[in-house]
This record gives sequence, structure tokens and C-alpha cells, in this order.
Amino acid sequence: MTFSYPLNRIVEIIGSHVTCEGDFSGAITGIASLSSANTGDLSFLGNPQYKDQVEHSKASILLLPRDHSGKPKADQLFLKVDNPSYALALLCRDIEIDLLPKPPAGIHPTAFVDPSANVHNTASVGAFCYIGPQAVIGPEVTLAEHISIGRAARVGEQTQIFPRVVVSDYCEIGSRNRLLQGCVIGSDGYGYALVEGAHQRLPQIGRVVTGADVDVGANTTIDRARFGTTEIGVGTKIDNLVQVGHNVSIGKHCLLVAQVAVAGSTKIGNGVVVAGQAGIAGHLNIGDGVIITAASVVVRSIEANLKVGGCPAQASLVTNRIYSLQRKLPDLFKRFDQMEKTIDSTYKAQT
Amino acid sequence: MTFSYPLNRIVEIIGSHVTCEGDFSGAITGIASLSSANTGDLSFLGNPQYKDQVEHSKASILLLPRDHSGKPKADQLFLKVDNPSYALALLCRDIEIDLLPKPPAGIHPTAFVDPSANVHNTASVGAFCYIGPQAVIGPEVTLAEHISIGRAARVGEQTQIFPRVVVSDYCEIGSRNRLLQGCVIGSDGYGYALVEGAHQRLPQIGRVVTGADVDVGANTTIDRARFGTTEIGVGTKIDNLVQVGHNVSIGKHCLLVAQVAVAGSTKIGNGVVVAGQAGIAGHLNIGDGVIITAASVVVRSIEANLKVGGCPAQASLVTNRIYSLQRKLPDLFKRFDQMEKTIDSTYKAQT
Amino acid sequence: MTFSYPLNRIVEIIGSHVTCEGDFSGAITGIASLSSANTGDLSFLGNPQYKDQVEHSKASILLLPRDHSGKPKADQLFLKVDNPSYALALLCRDIEIDLLPKPPAGIHPTAFVDPSANVHNTASVGAFCYIGPQAVIGPEVTLAEHISIGRAARVGEQTQIFPRVVVSDYCEIGSRNRLLQGCVIGSDGYGYALVEGAHQRLPQIGRVVTGADVDVGANTTIDRARFGTTEIGVGTKIDNLVQVGHNVSIGKHCLLVAQVAVAGSTKIGNGVVVAGQAGIAGHLNIGDGVIITAASVVVRSIEANLKVGGCPAQASLVTNRIYSLQRKLPDLFKRFDQMEKTIDSTYKAQT
Repeated sequence: MTFSYPLNRIVEIIGSHVTCEGDFSGAITGIASLSSANTGDLSFLGNPQYKDQVEHSKASILLLPRDHSGKPKADQLFLKVDNPSYALALLCRDIEIDLLPKPPAGIHPTAFVDPSANVHNTASVGAFCYIGPQAVIGPEVTLAEHISIGRAARVGEQTQIFPRVVVSDYCEIGSRNRLLQGCVIGSDGYGYALVEGAHQRLPQIGRVVTGADVDVGANTTIDRARFGTTEIGVGTKIDNLVQVGHNVSIGKHCLLVAQVAVAGSTKIGNGVVVAGQAGIAGHLNIGDGVIITAASVVVRSIEANLKVGGCPAQASLVTNRIYSLQRKLPDLFKRFDQMEKTIDSTYKAQT
Repeated sequence: MTFSYPLNRIVEIIGSHVTCEGDFSGAITGIASLSSANTGDLSFLGNPQYKDQVEHSKASILLLPRDHSGKPKADQLFLKVDNPSYALALLCRDIEIDLLPKPPAGIHPTAFVDPSANVHNTASVGAFCYIGPQAVIGPEVTLAEHISIGRAARVGEQTQIFPRVVVSDYCEIGSRNRLLQGCVIGSDGYGYALVEGAHQRLPQIGRVVTGADVDVGANTTIDRARFGTTEIGVGTKIDNLVQVGHNVSIGKHCLLVAQVAVAGSTKIGNGVVVAGQAGIAGHLNIGDGVIITAASVVVRSIEANLKVGGCPAQASLVTNRIYSLQRKLPDLFKRFDQMEKTIDSTYKAQT
Repeated sequence: MTFSYPLNRIVEIIGSHVTCEGDFSGAITGIASLSSANTGDLSFLGNPQYKDQVEHSKASILLLPRDHSGKPKADQLFLKVDNPSYALALLCRDIEIDLLPKPPAGIHPTAFVDPSANVHNTASVGAFCYIGPQAVIGPEVTLAEHISIGRAARVGEQTQIFPRVVVSDYCEIGSRNRLLQGCVIGSDGYGYALVEGAHQRLPQIGRVVTGADVDVGANTTIDRARFGTTEIGVGTKIDNLVQVGHNVSIGKHCLLVAQVAVAGSTKIGNGVVVAGQAGIAGHLNIGDGVIITAASVVVRSIEANLKVGGCPAQASLVTNRIYSLQRKLPDLFKRFDQMEKTIDSTYKAQT
């Protein structure tokens, strides 16, 4: 896990809009946070919370926002850019390609591919993969190890699938998706009808369809539709251990953070952010641009562009006001007891 | 994923108690929700919330409750039944058999079966399955790919196991279970004793036993008992990403919705419903017929047939009253401040 | 799953500091809870909550705390020890070795080991395992089935890995770890930068490093660092379905119970206990010895040795006081309405 990047290579990667300040002529051999960086490391200020750490950082090169006011130390270089976090990402992407080379096209000798499946000759199929009947694996797809691709499932071009993923029967994965380890695309929806005291399963004959550029986190589960489609829109990024119920529709460019759960048939608009551990009940509409704060419990539909939180979720301004007043409850109860006494004595004095 | 069902076939499947109203003589080639259905589709009203969508639906055949009052359009047929959702399920079950044919009996050439295991000759063992020593796979069991069946584990007849499931050593799966992708039956219970500042593992030598007709969701985990048995009762249906701790006992015909967690040694009665993301502490008793609402945190035992919610969970009527009053706190604090002023001035006026 | 332990063998295992009371001369053939035990079973009192069950227990041998005051029945033996739960653990460890014999060293014929990987000759590699390039598997390591060990990943000596685990590229697992079924070590961190309306992935080129004696639960996910290291300290025990974000640092001897989530870059000290379903926001510091109660939502850093709970989490004493007062809100609102009337009439009487 070693690398070495001279300044000119770094500038080449992060682009010409960079402003250099200070002086460091060596090569970068590591990336580290502001506080843990040493000579030879590159660091960055991505979160203003850590601003004060810049002047104490021993990093040799620092990626900083353009309006940063401090000055570099001796043998230290500031690279000022619009978005330090993104500039770092560009650099890391380059390093990542070195560290994790794309496996060669072809099918691993231990893999099993059904004769009726169609694997593109530029795709890579890893060890112990199972490709079911009529499945289609597109160009430049990378499948790591222990992956199951079900009957008639389709995987779009340049999609990367990590070990131990299941893409179940008839599901359709878009282009340039990243499906992380252990996620399950197309598990049965959870639907039962109570018939004579027993829960009878409602067969789930729909599928899951993801748009282009979707990411799905490790051990996340996305249920197939009862009929029709569970949809994940273009550019939506789903974190680990998330549950997406059957017939859910999620719009474009949404973020669903770890351990979120979305119950069946709920529709989520575009650009929605659902923070970690939040839950959304079934059959709701969540408008475009909504932000749902962590651990919220959403039980009603939400209009576009609102920020909501709490249990049950309501406008965050209201929720935060309530949280603040809850902390004053002990005081309120005391004041109230005192007031009752005052009134009591006032009343007695009058009678 | 195509199919075609003429009316007489549909009636044959959903049963003779149906009442027909209107007129449609073609075949059904799709199933869709009320709002997205088109000519040739069958739709249904399963949730009264969508009642108003019936008159605008373009579906050719609609499954409706008997008391539905609207009239079919031209070239549209109403099929009135007791339970439209269940009638649809019967139809979908038929379609499902077409879409997902049962694999033939036998052991896939890539599977590994320990010589001391006993696989019934009507069972189907998929690609890359591992069947451990002394394991017993019953009649008509279906194992998909990448499944691990541990030492001396048993799988009851007609049970269906999806890709990537682990049934760990000594665990016993009942008949007609459905274990969805990635679930783990028989992971170690989480038990430690603090000995001289370090957590010493308490070995977990019990097992998991499931009754007949149990479903377990994708990536759900059910821990083996410390000793004795973690039990899942007949007909209980568990959703995705649920955690069931060691020595938990769950009764018959319960529902545990996604991301529920039940801590160790808790006993859950029959017919209990635990909605999504709810948590139940350890060593509690949850009576028959209890309903626990979504995201509740249960820290005390609950008597039979109560509906509880909130954090900490209490009777839902109380919790909902508290939620409602919490929203009035800002107003209460204002009224209180005003009252203090009034009393203050009254008091001053008197002195 | 049968065994037979005579008294002298039991005393030999749990140590000489035991005090015997009563009389039972047979062998123990089962272990059961106080209420379910029968003749021939050993039981124990591990939780004072069950104290009253001792006198009714039919167990032949009971492990009890030294200060237990009751007397054994005929044909019943009390073994008094400092920590009955731990004494039972010692016994169960012995039984466990019988029930789950360590597999022999060597590589299963169905496994795939990259030629550049280094597997110690005392290690055991199970069926369908994949060992990537430059990976190192240490002495006496046990890998069960369907395990992926990524490029240049390292597994320390005597570590035990259960079926279907992924240890991703460059990650490093300490000695004597136990990684339970389906857990993922080294999934990508969840990091994106919004660039022209689309979420651009921030490459995650760091890794996960675990100390010695770490346990990781089933289907738990631990993300690799964006750069640098996600760290799990010596002796820390993580339960099932837990999410640990990128660049998180967890100290020594912590407990993270099921379904906990820790967001990116948070630092957790030593000896911290995070109870089930709790969530901790990113970029926080959680001091040594902190206890976070179940389902709490931690949004601020916490000083050492505090016990916190609730949403948002604060000192448990405060949270519990607020919970208690919330239950009195209906009464408070009534009293308040009454008081307004009283004041109103008093005021009117005065004017």
C-alpha cells in the first residue's frame, strides 16, 4: 500500500485551478488527517470544524479552501482549491487504481455460468460466481467472488459488484453501479395476508431496477416489488445495512445513510437525504429535496424541500424547539408547583 | 417475465366465490397498481387509502372488496371478493411458479456434500453449496447457491433456502420454511463476562430451532442459545435485517418487521406484531397478541393484547397523547410566562 | 449434541475455589435454565432477577453466587463460586470443543488460493474460500466456508472466521479474533462530494485494522477508512448488524451491541459500552468508560465515564427525569387549565 506522488503529478490530477502557496519540493508518500500527518504526507481541510488544526499540522502539502487565511510553514505547501474534499478525491481515485487494479476480462475457472447466460467478453467474472439462466452481464462489468446473479437478471455496463452480492431473478442493475459486499438486490417483499389465523405469503413477482450510477452499501437489502418494480433512481447512493421495501420508488441523486429503513410502496423524490437510522413508514410521499435527520421516524408524507426530524417526524425547527423545552420540563414543573402555592395562598388570603 | 391469463383461468385460480361485474373478454398480460395500470393489466384495491383511484384506473380487470360501490367502465371488469389482496396472491402464486420454476432434484456438480451428510433424493442442492458432516436435508428441500449447512444441522421438508444463507451447526429448520438471501441462523449469542478488565466470551453451545412455515428475511441474524434453544414458532414471519438474540423464544404466527431487534432471553407470545425498527430489551415477557409500533423501545414486560409504542414504550394511547402535548409545549411555556406575569402583578397589587 | 460430565470433571474445569453444598453423585448430561432444568441438568444463577427460581429448580447441580442463602434439595448439589456465569462459561468452553472440533490444518480441495498468497501450514482453509493475491493467513487460523480474503489482507494467528465473511483488500485482522457469519470488514466508506448536482464518490483508499481478541458479529459491516485506518481496539466485542463508519477509531475492551451505528471519524475511548440500536453521529469524541443506553442518538461528544441516553442523548439521570415528567404532561396540562380559570376568576373578582 505504498505510493509516491511529486507535486507536478498532483497538480496535474487535481486540475489547473489550484493556487500554490509556500514551498515543498519532495514527493507525497502518504495521506493523513491534519492532526496525524507527518513530513511527506498530504492532508486537507474538508470540514471547517477542523480549521484550527491547520496551523499545527505537520503535513507537507495541504489542500485548503481558497479563503483560508493562514500561512504555510517552512517546507510546507498550501494548495488552495474550490473544494478540498473533492480535490483529494481526484487524487485518491488515481491512487485507488494503483492499489486495486481492475481484474482481467474473462471467467474465473471456478465460476459457474449457465449455458443460456450471456456474459460480455469484456466482463470479468470472479471465483465461485454463479450466473443463472438467461442472465446478461454487460461490457466491462466486474464481478468479484461468491456472487449470485439470478435467472434473467441483467447487469449494466461498467458496473462493479463486490464479493458475496446477490442480484436476484429478473432484477436489472444499471450502468456504473457499485454494489458493495453482501448486499441483496431482489429479496422477496414482506407481504402476508391473515387467512384463518395464519399469515399467508403474498407472492412477490416484481423486480428491482436501478438507474445508472447507483451505489448500494454492504449487507443492504432491497426487496423486489410485489408486482411491477422497486426503483432506485439515477445517481442515488445507499449506505450499509439499509432496508428498502417492496414497490418503493426512490428518485435521482438521493442519499440513504446507514441503517435507514423505507417501508413498502413509499415514493421518495429527487435529491432527498435520509440520515442514518431514520425510518419511513409505507405508502407515503416524500417530496423532492426533503432532508430527514438521523433516527427520525416518518409517519406522514412530507412536502418538497422540508427538513424534518424527531419521532414522529415534523419540521426540524419545531422538533428542536420541543427538544429544548423538554430539557426545561424539570424547571417548569418546579415553577408550576411554586405557582400553585402562591395562588393557593393568594386565594386563601382573599377568602 | 411475460404471461397471459384469460378470465376463466383467473376465476379458476381465485375461486368460485367471486362476483363479476362489467365486461372484459381479453387476457391479462400484466399486474399493476391502480394508478399505473393500462389496458390488459389486472389491478386491485388492497388498501382503502387508494379507493379514489379505482374510478380513474385503466386496468382491464380489478379485484375489489365486495362492498365497493363504483361501476366498471366500458371494457372493464370488476371481480368482487372477500379479500382482494389475498385473491391477487393466489393469482401471483400461479405466475410465480411459471417465472421461477423449481430446480430439479439432485446435487449441483460444484456443490460439496460431506460424506456423512444425508441429502434426500428429492432435494435440490445448488451451485457452491456446502453441506457439513451429519447434516440432514429433508425431502423436496430447495437450496439455491452459496449456502452453508453446518455440522449436524437439519432442514425440514419442502423448505426453500435462498442464496448465501448460513444454517449453522446443530440448528434445526422446520418444514416449509423460507430463508431469504444472506440470513444467518445460529450465529453465536453475544455473551461476555468481565474478568480482570477483559470481556471473556461465554461459549454458546445451544442452537436455533424453527417451527413449520417460518420465513426469515434477507441478512437477518438469529443467534444460537447460550445453551438450550432459541425458538421461532410455527408460522412466524421475520423480515430483513432483524436481530434475534440468544435464548429468545418467539411464539406462533408473529410478525417481526425489518430491522427489529430482540435482546437475549426475551419471550414473545403468539400472534405478536413488532413493527419496523422496534427494539425489545432482554429477559422480558411479551404477551400474546401484543402490538409494538414502529421504532418503539420496549424496556418492560407487556401484558397480552396491549398496543404499545414510544421510547420507552407504553400504551399507545398514552404515547400518542404525550406526542400531542409535546407539540403544545411551546404554547404552554408562553402561557406559563404570561401567567407568572399576571400573578406577579396581582400579587404586587395586593401588597 | 450429547455429553456427560461427572462432578469431579466439572470441579476440575471450573477451578478449586468452589464450595460444594448438598449431594449429587451422577453425571451431568444437559445444561438448562433454572425453570426448565430437570434431573441430570446443571443450571446456574447468573442474573439476580431469577433468584426466586433457585428453590423450585429441578437441576441436579446449581452454580450459585457465594452469598446465596438457600439450601439444596435431596439429590441436589450447590456449587458456590465468585461468578456463576463465568464458571458456566468455563464448562461450556469444554463442551464446545467436543461439539465443534477444530478442522484439520490444510486447504480444502474446493478452495482457491492465489499463488502469491501466503497461508501458514497450520491454518485451515474451508470449502469455497477465496484467498487473494499477497494475502497472509497466519498460524492456526481457521477459515470456514465461502470466505473472501482480499488482496494483501492479513489474518492474525489463531483467528477464527465463520462462513461467508469478507475481509477486504489491505485490511488487517489481529490475533484470536472471531469474525462471525456474513460480516464485512473493509467495505467502502460512504463519502460523496456534490459536484454539479451529482454525488461524486470519494475514493476510500484506507483500510480496517483490528487488535487482538476482537469479535465481530454476524452481518456487521466495518468500513475501510477514506485514507489511513478504521481501528477496532484490543478486546472490543461487536454484536450483529452493527455499522462502523470510515475512519472511526474504537478503543480497547468496548462493547457495541446489535444494530448500533457509528458514523464516520468518531473516536470512541476504552471500555465504552454502546447498547443496542444506539446511533453515534460522525466526528465526535466519546470518552473512556462512557455508557450509552439502548436506542440513544448521540449528537455531541461525551466526557469520560458518563452514562447517557435518549434522543438527543444527554445524561441518563436527566433523560429519565424527562421521561418521567413527560408521563405527567397530561396531568400538567389539566392543572394548568384549571389554574388559568382560578386566576381568571380571582382577577375578575378583584376588578
